[in-house]
Amino acid sequence: MSSTIHPTAIVEENVQLGKNVSVGAFSIIRSGVRIGDSSSIGAYCELGGSHSRELESEHLVFGANAIIRSHSTFYGGSMFGDNLSTGHRVTVRSGTRAGKSLQLGTGTDVQGDCVIQDYVRMHSNVHVSMKSIIENYAWLFPGVVLTNDPRPPSENLVGVKVGEFAVLAAGVIVLPGKIVGRGSLVAAGSVLTRNADEGCLYYGNPAKNGGPLSQLRSWGENRPNYPWRYRFHRGYPNQIVDEWMSEISD
Amino acid sequence: MSSTIHPTAIVEENVQLGKNVSVGAFSIIRSGVRIGDSSSIGAYCELGGSHSRELESEHLVFGANAIIRSHSTFYGGSMFGDNLSTGHRVTVRSGTRAGKSLQLGTGTDVQGDCVIQDYVRMHSNVHVSMKSIIENYAWLFPGVVLTNDPRPPSENLVGVKVGEFAVLAAGVIVLPGKIVGRGSLVAAGSVLTRNADEGCLYYGNPAKNGGPLSQLRSWGENRPNYPWRYRFHRGYPNQIVDEWMSEISD
Amino acid sequence: MSSTIHPTAIVEENVQLGKNVSVGAFSIIRSGVRIGDSSSIGAYCELGGSHSRELESEHLVFGANAIIRSHSTFYGGSMFGDNLSTGHRVTVRSGTRAGKSLQLGTGTDVQGDCVIQDYVRMHSNVHVSMKSIIENYAWLFPGVVLTNDPRPPSENLVGVKVGEFAVLAAGVIVLPGKIVGRGSLVAAGSVLTRNADEGCLYYGNPAKNGGPLSQLRSWGENRPNYPWRYRFHRGYPNQIVDEWMSEISD
Repeated sequence: MSSTIHPTAIVEENVQLGKNVSVGAFSIIRSGVRIGDSSSIGAYCELGGSHSRELESEHLVFGANAIIRSHSTFYGGSMFGDNLSTGHRVTVRSGTRAGKSLQLGTGTDVQGDCVIQDYVRMHSNVHVSMKSIIENYAWLFPGVVLTNDPRPPSENLVGVKVGEFAVLAAGVIVLPGKIVGRGSLVAAGSVLTRNADEGCLYYGNPAKNGGPLSQLRSWGENRPNYPWRYRFHRGYPNQIVDEWMSEISD
Repeated sequence: MSSTIHPTAIVEENVQLGKNVSVGAFSIIRSGVRIGDSSSIGAYCELGGSHSRELESEHLVFGANAIIRSHSTFYGGSMFGDNLSTGHRVTVRSGTRAGKSLQLGTGTDVQGDCVIQDYVRMHSNVHVSMKSIIENYAWLFPGVVLTNDPRPPSENLVGVKVGEFAVLAAGVIVLPGKIVGRGSLVAAGSVLTRNADEGCLYYGNPAKNGGPLSQLRSWGENRPNYPWRYRFHRGYPNQIVDEWMSEISD
Repeated sequence: MSSTIHPTAIVEENVQLGKNVSVGAFSIIRSGVRIGDSSSIGAYCELGGSHSRELESEHLVFGANAIIRSHSTFYGGSMFGDNLSTGHRVTVRSGTRAGKSLQLGTGTDVQGDCVIQDYVRMHSNVHVSMKSIIENYAWLFPGVVLTNDPRPPSENLVGVKVGEFAVLAAGVIVLPGKIVGRGSLVAAGSVLTRNADEGCLYYGNPAKNGGPLSQLRSWGENRPNYPWRYRFHRGYPNQIVDEWMSEISD
């Protein structure tokens, strides 16, 4: 099956569309964009172009099975693995390198020059400042803000690093350069002003260490809830889930 | 007077428009949408379609006098009473049942499967998670977040309940499953980690009970300000205001 | 060079475009809009119209060199000096008077009836309530909220005043009527519940005075970082920077 481009959409020259790609009404695909097979672009999206800096490449590359929902804006000069899925009104500026199966919620704003590994999930209205690093399987819930300027305003931007399996709950703010340890959980509304240890709970403003997450029971059940990868599997491939479960069956 | 559909708008088959409905430039009304009389849809809106789950109904139904401002997105499978009014760039996902005279501010994001009663007012950039319940006359000010996952990430979503006449000031975060008592006020920037008693003030992170709101004077005047329904009437019908005022005249 | 209006754009009558103005695809310029020379309007923008109140003037006036990025909405009845620059999905309602070189980040929402002086920079997702006053060279970082209702909901709106050179870091909430002193810094995630003294650091919820900013060293360097105008000059004209530097060379 070939691509379906809505008659009102604008597709410039030098665009590569894979097989079975759909482009929604009133969307604009600018020169230098490459979209993988079986991808779907919603209405009112603008992909490519509008970068204002020198880049390694001005191409904007999406893997297969991308779903980009309406009113979203992606600048030239970024690269995404397969299975990107976005909500509405997402913005990603230039220079981002993202792995596979990235989810970006409605209104989320990635400022560019970020490194995002595989299976990262961001919910609505997350703000990711330039130079952020987000590792595999991390979760950023609604309204999370990753900052990058220790002495605002300044030229010395220092990005946040969010470790594998870490969870930032709703409204969390992480201060510049802080490291969120692997598998840690920062509770809703917390302001993380120092590094978070691996596998620990943090809460409050400024966030305090509430001890190992292994103490935290599941909701309504008397069994441990963390590491969450032993309990929550929705949307992850069987192969990955099998690996996770083999960690506890050993 | 019949409907006015901008020539650039796209209206699919199986759409029911009431009398005197206007549809703005570049908007898309998908199959299964029903819009009541004297409604106005702004530019760049997409109404209907794009639901991804099984629903009781895929229809998207608006009562009379709806005003939906530009760049807004409503999924199929929700229902709104008369007098819905939105700001710009609003998103409402599937499965929401809303009463009359709902106001949704610019950028507000309702995640679906929510129950919203009458005369609820949300300001800009409010995030309403799935399974939230918001009762009559409640107010949610800019940036409020209602969460729903007590052990993120998990499958056990537990919605927030916001009681009648309750007020959540700017930037308030309510933790999963918490009940905001009738007529209570949660101060700006607070994180509500437990239930809020009726008619009380809460403030801080975590929010503390600051006592009955009846102690709080109006701004610049030495008289009680709460319950607010005895002082603030803008936009409510005379009949409702008369009922409120009869409570204190008795 | 004359103006370039994309063939899909809609430009109503009674619009004044300067020389070398470009209007992007699917944008709408309503009657009463005046745009200065060498300005660039992105795609999916709606400028002018849709005001709902009586205004001194229904005109919407932009100075020269305006850059308005995609999906933005400006109501009639506001006025901007030269060099306005916005991110995507910005909203500005009626009655705002802004000076020159204003920057508004992606998703920022200015509610109208605000006074904004010169060289003010707002980052993404800032919410500026009605009646706010923001003085020269102030910075508002991502997610800042300026509130205006001391007894919500009420009719007595009292705007915030942000002083010259003041910096509100990410996620700061300022309570109604509070004055942010000249050159002060409110740290990320703080809730400012009282006035902030000039040149001081504030942090926490509620925000505490952390003393004079002159104590704060630059990141990685043992020299004072504040007042920031002696260290940070990106984007300011030479003449202004020279004035700032002459303050310390004297």
